[in-house]
Amino acid sequence: MSRKKHHNAEQDDRAKLQIIPLGGLEQIGMNITAFCSGDSIIVVDVGMAFPTDDMLGVDLVIPDISWLLENEEKVKGFFITHGHEDHIGAIPYILNQLKAPLYATRLTMGIIEHKLEEHHLLDDVDRHVVQFGDVIEVGEFQVEYIRTNHSIVDAAALAITSPAGTVVHTGDFKVDYTPVYGDPIDLQRFAEIGRQGVLALMCDSTNAERPGYTASEKTVGRTFDQLFQEHVDTRIIVATFASNVDRVQQVINSAAKFGRKVVIEGRSMVTIIDIAQQLGCIKIPENTIIDIEQLKNYPENKTVIITTGSQGENMAALSRMSTGQHKKITIGPNDTVILSSHPIPGNEKAITNVINDLLLKGADVISQDVHVSGHACQEDIKLIYTLVQPQYAIPVHGEYKHLIAQGKIARDLGIPKKNVFILRSGDILELNARGAAVNGKVPVGAILVDGKGVGDVGNAVLRDRQHLSEDGIVIVAAMVDKETGDLIGAPSIQSRGFVYMREADELIEDCMDLVVEELSHALEKGTRDNNKLKGILRDELGNFLWRRTERRPIIIPIIMDVRA
Amino acid sequence: MSRKKHHNAEQDDRAKLQIIPLGGLEQIGMNITAFCSGDSIIVVDVGMAFPTDDMLGVDLVIPDISWLLENEEKVKGFFITHGHEDHIGAIPYILNQLKAPLYATRLTMGIIEHKLEEHHLLDDVDRHVVQFGDVIEVGEFQVEYIRTNHSIVDAAALAITSPAGTVVHTGDFKVDYTPVYGDPIDLQRFAEIGRQGVLALMCDSTNAERPGYTASEKTVGRTFDQLFQEHVDTRIIVATFASNVDRVQQVINSAAKFGRKVVIEGRSMVTIIDIAQQLGCIKIPENTIIDIEQLKNYPENKTVIITTGSQGENMAALSRMSTGQHKKITIGPNDTVILSSHPIPGNEKAITNVINDLLLKGADVISQDVHVSGHACQEDIKLIYTLVQPQYAIPVHGEYKHLIAQGKIARDLGIPKKNVFILRSGDILELNARGAAVNGKVPVGAILVDGKGVGDVGNAVLRDRQHLSEDGIVIVAAMVDKETGDLIGAPSIQSRGFVYMREADELIEDCMDLVVEELSHALEKGTRDNNKLKGILRDELGNFLWRRTERRPIIIPIIMDVRA
Repeated sequence: MSRKKHHNAEQDDRAKLQIIPLGGLEQIGMNITAFCSGDSIIVVDVGMAFPTDDMLGVDLVIPDISWLLENEEKVKGFFITHGHEDHIGAIPYILNQLKAPLYATRLTMGIIEHKLEEHHLLDDVDRHVVQFGDVIEVGEFQVEYIRTNHSIVDAAALAITSPAGTVVHTGDFKVDYTPVYGDPIDLQRFAEIGRQGVLALMCDSTNAERPGYTASEKTVGRTFDQLFQEHVDTRIIVATFASNVDRVQQVINSAAKFGRKVVIEGRSMVTIIDIAQQLGCIKIPENTIIDIEQLKNYPENKTVIITTGSQGENMAALSRMSTGQHKKITIGPNDTVILSSHPIPGNEKAITNVINDLLLKGADVISQDVHVSGHACQEDIKLIYTLVQPQYAIPVHGEYKHLIAQGKIARDLGIPKKNVFILRSGDILELNARGAAVNGKVPVGAILVDGKGVGDVGNAVLRDRQHLSEDGIVIVAAMVDKETGDLIGAPSIQSRGFVYMREADELIEDCMDLVVEELSHALEKGTRDNNKLKGILRDELGNFLWRRTERRPIIIPIIMDVRA
Repeated sequence: MSRKKHHNAEQDDRAKLQIIPLGGLEQIGMNITAFCSGDSIIVVDVGMAFPTDDMLGVDLVIPDISWLLENEEKVKGFFITHGHEDHIGAIPYILNQLKAPLYATRLTMGIIEHKLEEHHLLDDVDRHVVQFGDVIEVGEFQVEYIRTNHSIVDAAALAITSPAGTVVHTGDFKVDYTPVYGDPIDLQRFAEIGRQGVLALMCDSTNAERPGYTASEKTVGRTFDQLFQEHVDTRIIVATFASNVDRVQQVINSAAKFGRKVVIEGRSMVTIIDIAQQLGCIKIPENTIIDIEQLKNYPENKTVIITTGSQGENMAALSRMSTGQHKKITIGPNDTVILSSHPIPGNEKAITNVINDLLLKGADVISQDVHVSGHACQEDIKLIYTLVQPQYAIPVHGEYKHLIAQGKIARDLGIPKKNVFILRSGDILELNARGAAVNGKVPVGAILVDGKGVGDVGNAVLRDRQHLSEDGIVIVAAMVDKETGDLIGAPSIQSRGFVYMREADELIEDCMDLVVEELSHALEKGTRDNNKLKGILRDELGNFLWRRTERRPIIIPIIMDVRA
């Protein structure tokens, strides 16, 4: 895109802008980016990530912000683009340590406030609700909120202006000419800002591998109408993302049209729909919503249940229904279950299991073509580039392969290869009038949250959990008299996750013989050092168990000296 | 399909056939089906399944054959349809316990023999290689092998005739008019058998949800030629399934055309290609294959590496290359990696991780449209039904949702709903001249293989592994003098997978204080019973750790009496 015609009037040729993604570029989730100009830092989004398969037992993952903490006095504000967990989920953990004003649109703030309340932090955070079109001035930055569309209401792009120029950050977005709630994405404003000259575009890459355009949310509404028409005789259960307010709105619309009562089920969905209703982001006709307890008062084919669990999540309402563990809803042949969602990568198997379980209970399951994406496809991405005409392209939001795919689009649109930056988390991208380059790195990382523990589960603990999960643990405790060198009493051998002890009598007896023999032998030879004795037990028992079982449980030897 | 015109000449109106699937109907894998007529039982396929996510540490899963063992003297033979693990993987574990002749086609037997050799069982199994068209008579059954096509060479369908009539079992199959090796599926024979009258069709359901036809394997060959043409400047790495001999053949063909040398990498692929070559199922032009050590003697763009790991398997060659852990192959910007495969459900995330890692190393990755399925799509399934015209439809091979989908196809083709049987593993389906019905159940189940242990990992062990993987374990050992009621020395506290102990000094000290206090208190009050003392420690420490960490590690209290 060599077509850049205008320069930002305010652009200062000596000014320098640093863009530093602190997460989000190696995986989906944990979006957080710092913008640094002179003595000012602003942060866009404060997201969490879900643990990967190797993070056993971990609840969630948050970004390491030690670099921000080092520059604490410079941090002027947090600017949130929308209310999804990968953009707001780490707020309670980060704003806890780093105080600065937080800016977000209405529904986004509603969801954040609920989260802060749960963490008893509501009074600790200086919150500012912004309108689309608002420009917030903090330090050297002006940040403008621009309306976009997405799978959650009130999503925003940001135009971030610093003395070095303007960066447009799309957040997660799609182009929806006929959104369910509110107005279409403000393409005129994107164009205007583009006309004034844009230094860099940071654009959502999630669907950069998908050709064509993303369909309007309203198309799903028409599908619902059709499905409700085709299934007038059964109960209808619709599973979708808890935060997709527009989707819930459309199910409610279809339900109202077909004279069905609606139950909303699943804690997170109830919460978000409550907030959306208070803010007027969803319109629920009177007498449409009923309590789950009232279901029995209506014929089945006059009810709809909207539920969480469309990703096959173990504890979500739909999973519990599918396995017969839901206390209030029993699935049977008179149910039509609609999965209005698309599998998030990694969830395919869990979703298939839920579908199979529902079919086994006799339900009809519809899971194809009842969903549209919340992210821009290739042609939409081209539209934004063509409106904004940035000097530099910095693909964001997506896995590495998605960033690469958007990089190709940008180059196809004429942006020179050297002006396309596929960044890694921690990279310091410096932009000024002379050019742009990655210039150093800040420390970044993933901090694991497990229960109340933030960061106390690291690689060593995860390695142990992995090992325990595969082969279990064997614990041998023995009392010795270090003065006499006698073994006192019988050692105790216990295991967990290794073999079923009650049916492994022989193996355990052989272990016991081995332990007694090896310990007595070592003590007789005069060995007294606890670590040596433990080492002998660990090695000998480990080898013995491998020969017998071809498993390598963790072995914990405990030697207690009765003279201690 | 009320169009059944002919009756099998030999059909005996008083005869009864039982079809008993012993696995394979609730999940992909573990295919094994018993057919029972009078005093004769035959078994079709003896497959394994891969462990599901909740089977932590388990290597593989085999079917419970206790019912077959009870009827041991009736079992006349094992008939194998093709050489994939989900059809042959349990052979060493089952034929080990149950001796009966084993029948299979050439390549299938080659793979089975390799497997038996690894288990030192080659001399224990009575093996018979069959040709397509062969009819094997055992007890009351005649079993005919019919050529089909699939993603492995030498796949067969079976026509199983008993006094009650003929059942056609397709095995896994596709319809390929232009296969790479051998002839197309023997549609004429399907038609002939259909003409003579078929009682039931057991047809592959894997792709029953997919409309249209499955493309010929040869189409992938054309794609390879095109990709080789487009990437003459880089090294090419092709990942595919180890057992897809035809696919490997086609990569070799393209390599030969473009003057490239070929390395085959990955143990399982090397094994199968060796067997295929010995049997003449693959034709490798002279001087095409080179040893991996010779790679350095050729320009990169004159080499091709064919490798395992297309499913993102952790330890497979491609994964090791992607993470830089492969000793002999280093990925870089001069590599084009082609994933010639489709994700098996559940592997999507792992595959995406490999792709991202390869891109990060600068490689170009091509993963779309370089694969065709080995299973029949809807129109192919309709073709087989129309040729065979069975009285009863028994969809097999697939998840429950796939069986349901094929059931719908069968009904669309005119088979009455009551003649479509969606069976569960263990169902006894009885067919005779008067009709067909599920009539009872035999015990079935999944037996977990972990290392040398077959069946010694059950639910209790798996629950512990799950618990250990999430929250770890805390072990408290204390010595007491049960006569005096004294606590001797300091208790020992250890943990694995719980918190990083070196940074949890305070927590551990507090634990120690709690243990000493609770134990002393109990001993002072006169408690001497080991189980009571352990119960106190487990409860108090559990509650304490929950309050402090919101984690629930397994707690193992060990109380040792110095007087013992």
